[in-house]
Amino acid sequence: MTIHTFTPTRYYNVLVAAPPVLRIAPGDTVITTTVDAHGFDAARNQATPPGNPMTGPFFVEGAEPGDTLVVHLDAITPNRSYGWGNTMLAPNVVDPEFVRDLPWPPPGERRRSHWHVDVAANTATLVDPVVEGGLVLPLAPMLGCFGVAPAGGEAISTATSGPQGGNMDYRGFVAGVTVYFPVFEPGALFFLGDGHARQGAGEIAGTGVEISCDVRFTVNVQKGRRIFWPRGENATHIFTAGNARPLDQALQHATTEMARWLQDEYGMSAIHAQTLLGQAVDYEVGNVFDPAYTMVCKLEKRWLPAS
Amino acid sequence: MTIHTFTPTRYYNVLVAAPPVLRIAPGDTVITTTVDAHGFDAARNQATPPGNPMTGPFFVEGAEPGDTLVVHLDAITPNRSYGWGNTMLAPNVVDPEFVRDLPWPPPGERRRSHWHVDVAANTATLVDPVVEGGLVLPLAPMLGCFGVAPAGGEAISTATSGPQGGNMDYRGFVAGVTVYFPVFEPGALFFLGDGHARQGAGEIAGTGVEISCDVRFTVNVQKGRRIFWPRGENATHIFTAGNARPLDQALQHATTEMARWLQDEYGMSAIHAQTLLGQAVDYEVGNVFDPAYTMVCKLEKRWLPAS
Amino acid sequence: MTIHTFTPTRYYNVLVAAPPVLRIAPGDTVITTTVDAHGFDAARNQATPPGNPMTGPFFVEGAEPGDTLVVHLDAITPNRSYGWGNTMLAPNVVDPEFVRDLPWPPPGERRRSHWHVDVAANTATLVDPVVEGGLVLPLAPMLGCFGVAPAGGEAISTATSGPQGGNMDYRGFVAGVTVYFPVFEPGALFFLGDGHARQGAGEIAGTGVEISCDVRFTVNVQKGRRIFWPRGENATHIFTAGNARPLDQALQHATTEMARWLQDEYGMSAIHAQTLLGQAVDYEVGNVFDPAYTMVCKLEKRWLPAS
Amino acid sequence: MTIHTFTPTRYYNVLVAAPPVLRIAPGDTVITTTVDAHGFDAARNQATPPGNPMTGPFFVEGAEPGDTLVVHLDAITPNRSYGWGNTMLAPNVVDPEFVRDLPWPPPGERRRSHWHVDVAANTATLVDPVVEGGLVLPLAPMLGCFGVAPAGGEAISTATSGPQGGNMDYRGFVAGVTVYFPVFEPGALFFLGDGHARQGAGEIAGTGVEISCDVRFTVNVQKGRRIFWPRGENATHIFTAGNARPLDQALQHATTEMARWLQDEYGMSAIHAQTLLGQAVDYEVGNVFDPAYTMVCKLEKRWLPAS
Repeated sequence: MTIHTFTPTRYYNVLVAAPPVLRIAPGDTVITTTVDAHGFDAARNQATPPGNPMTGPFFVEGAEPGDTLVVHLDAITPNRSYGWGNTMLAPNVVDPEFVRDLPWPPPGERRRSHWHVDVAANTATLVDPVVEGGLVLPLAPMLGCFGVAPAGGEAISTATSGPQGGNMDYRGFVAGVTVYFPVFEPGALFFLGDGHARQGAGEIAGTGVEISCDVRFTVNVQKGRRIFWPRGENATHIFTAGNARPLDQALQHATTEMARWLQDEYGMSAIHAQTLLGQAVDYEVGNVFDPAYTMVCKLEKRWLPAS
Repeated sequence: MTIHTFTPTRYYNVLVAAPPVLRIAPGDTVITTTVDAHGFDAARNQATPPGNPMTGPFFVEGAEPGDTLVVHLDAITPNRSYGWGNTMLAPNVVDPEFVRDLPWPPPGERRRSHWHVDVAANTATLVDPVVEGGLVLPLAPMLGCFGVAPAGGEAISTATSGPQGGNMDYRGFVAGVTVYFPVFEPGALFFLGDGHARQGAGEIAGTGVEISCDVRFTVNVQKGRRIFWPRGENATHIFTAGNARPLDQALQHATTEMARWLQDEYGMSAIHAQTLLGQAVDYEVGNVFDPAYTMVCKLEKRWLPAS
Repeated sequence: MTIHTFTPTRYYNVLVAAPPVLRIAPGDTVITTTVDAHGFDAARNQATPPGNPMTGPFFVEGAEPGDTLVVHLDAITPNRSYGWGNTMLAPNVVDPEFVRDLPWPPPGERRRSHWHVDVAANTATLVDPVVEGGLVLPLAPMLGCFGVAPAGGEAISTATSGPQGGNMDYRGFVAGVTVYFPVFEPGALFFLGDGHARQGAGEIAGTGVEISCDVRFTVNVQKGRRIFWPRGENATHIFTAGNARPLDQALQHATTEMARWLQDEYGMSAIHAQTLLGQAVDYEVGNVFDPAYTMVCKLEKRWLPAS
Repeated sequence: MTIHTFTPTRYYNVLVAAPPVLRIAPGDTVITTTVDAHGFDAARNQATPPGNPMTGPFFVEGAEPGDTLVVHLDAITPNRSYGWGNTMLAPNVVDPEFVRDLPWPPPGERRRSHWHVDVAANTATLVDPVVEGGLVLPLAPMLGCFGVAPAGGEAISTATSGPQGGNMDYRGFVAGVTVYFPVFEPGALFFLGDGHARQGAGEIAGTGVEISCDVRFTVNVQKGRRIFWPRGENATHIFTAGNARPLDQALQHATTEMARWLQDEYGMSAIHAQTLLGQAVDYEVGNVFDPAYTMVCKLEKRWLPAS
């Protein structure tokens, strides 16, 4: 149960079976940092090129293909006061006829929002652009992108997602949550980054309030537990994440994974599990901006069999 | 501000500009009943053929094409103790490879769940099939299908949805909610039915806990307010509903309608509205079983400009 | 085997079980006319409001729900020299980021192409806008929209399509083709219109070369032959049309209908039919502009069992 | 203009910036071989593990990111007489309700078709399963999967496709065709494999007639020509390939790429290009089995400006 403090010096823009930066054991905790989506760190220095740079990979001893990696998110804390975002909805989340009416910046320009993030006050305050009445939102720090080395020797951009996790941008990935990933490579090779001080569902403007973070997490390994998509649980719910396009297919993946979970691990009959899901399931929309969209399928724990 | 008590004697399986069963004035309240999705009433007699039979249409005086119909759902109360549903996920909400693993009934048979609905106790209890540990869920009565006569002389099946509303199966359509529909025909011609004692998101088993209901609603007309998709509000949120397939397009419709609402009616600049939505929007999944899917786009009222 | 000459005096913008304009018998032929998509006739007078106005409905004696209506397209001939179209791709057929780069007309204006259609020369010549080098294309007259009264008492806009046919905009619906429609209402109630002097696949600019036509067709009824989607055949191929969104679902409908056809009517085993389709199927894209898209699944007749 | 004869000894199951197996110059020709999708060679020995193993990568001198790689397919010839395939449609290409009716093999079994491929006779003859009347189809040898190292350091499975090409399974990739790929890595790093003796559109059974091949191709480099998706041309058409899901998005990519081509390289005005495409475009369906689907957008060369 070692606590490792790890300071990253290089970052990855793909999830891939790269040489690990640290080897850790089941039960170990890591205290580390993540840069923002453009590669800027706590001091607002550009530490690495943009594109959701990842801290890691961390090799978890004993994790083998076919196992499940457990990641408990102990703490996610913005480590600077400057956050940034977009000021326009992504063209793919509005009607095609509405795309021209979006607030496009003048040709050649890029328009960003700038936010003052105050962890003590738990607020993100919009500094620029100035909007009537101002805009102050509560923090809800989350990891936009994290996951493991993918299957089949692939290297998958941190701009998208898949069975390995990745850029799911789900607001439920906050401190206190336990996340499960399928293991495809020895050591699982866990990556993390793309912290958001907060974010609307879907990341429909293409960003949250982007920020560098201090992150603390604890890993474990479930030998021989085979899952197909990222899963998670918090105090009240279990959930599954499907990553694909269209959203219909992401929903199919997440729903199938939830049915499997109930039937294969909770010992519910198919009729029991599916009757329950029909009347009690919930969904949340993760990223709908990237090449792969994310749909989260949720179920309240109180409907699960007593163990 | 008349209160009408209306007992239906015929029902519609399409939303269409049919002869009204009652003419009511803005501000009027209607107390009426709905049969279940198979056409069975409070006494479990089959009053009309199946397929989401609708009570109505109600002609609202003064409502003209280009206006908005306001429907406040005052009360939705199951009026019998018997509810029914499905025991299997719909084939279209799971991975194609998983379809064979669904708990299909033997050839030629149909399998239903039967529920005991106790309004006083606020519970739906699964009576059959018998599942290990039993299943008792809280009630959350809602209208699965309601809306107005569609545009262009169409008659649209109550098995699907569109700009006119229809079979949206959104769990947020509960008592206390105000719903807005675009008016396409003189009098708007409001229909309602398909009550559910409760339902999971998406209606992924193809049914909620289907039941006949007593419904009380109050109408109003907003002259010259032009909307494109159903909208609504409750104590905490405003929301819009997009109806289409794939879910991506439903989300585009709902998001565009929300942006229009903020920009055109709340006087927010496009940059203000879209920066806000990017960091504060939420979504809920309505029906993902029918030909058209439903996505609901939500925003907390506390982020709206003070009026 | 009567030949009826029918001159329409009213038109429909929905497919619906309307009172028939003419009752015809199996084997009968009808010679009639269609107005263009905006309701203009051979003399360029506006005969009826726009929106794919339909000639019909024709009641075919003996056609009952569960039967199949056979329509042989004997002749489709533009009956004036003026055709029109759009000069811009539809926003929904290009990447969302490309929508702003389309050649939008100035605000408040509409831009049309104007074509000189010469049936004798078999050419459509672009008159306006003037483009470098000019543009002369061969004619390929087709019906954009035709079909029968839909199921369930629906009235479906001629702007879209479904099991009943409708606005499929498939370039294969030319003279010489035999089309099969499921019958949902007594008499089938056949409608036709929306002639195009020619059209690219997908109707991706939202129009073909729109024109009024003289049409001649011959009907028949296949008692007890139950089909689910429009089917057709020409000299070389049999084909099925699936109508839905996304295109993936249209393809599923068309492919399933083709498999059923081979297995249920041609007596092929499922393995035979599906092995053959895997190595010999072809697809064509119908309308990808309307609410429902159209995908056509084709198979060369030479691979069918000798009858 | 060297002609290289290259015998592969290792294969790749991802497109990735791997060390090149051969460096070749613009204008050079390569004569090489490909194994079948399961890794079996001309002698039916398993040379490498399954999953569309690729021959290559070939480093093309002078190709830099932002350039275009030109690959002329000189010859694709099956180099053995044994081909294999599937005997069942893929579950994702039929209606969800039809999945159970597919000819699934008994649990634990896999069912393949076996074909006798006769290059001299130009036929593929179905040997097993035995079907009534037999099945003999003409050969149409093609490459199912080929492309270049992807952008951003990704390694993309040869089971899918993207801007880099990959498993597009388009029947138009036959001898005589010239294909253009965007260059993302120095030397482009060209891979090829997955030969099919023939294939239906869409690869809807999940395979063509899978076979090892002798392939001859000639490369060139177009400096500074920036394209976004694979393009191609044959004697009669130019075409573009979009790779994504749903098919709607693949169509958007391909159509946008075609509009860019006409406008940016053929000097057509946007109105000219889009008016022409509206009335003359064609589409073909590539792979609809893999994670990313392929849609090909085609235009006859006779409508292009004289150069």
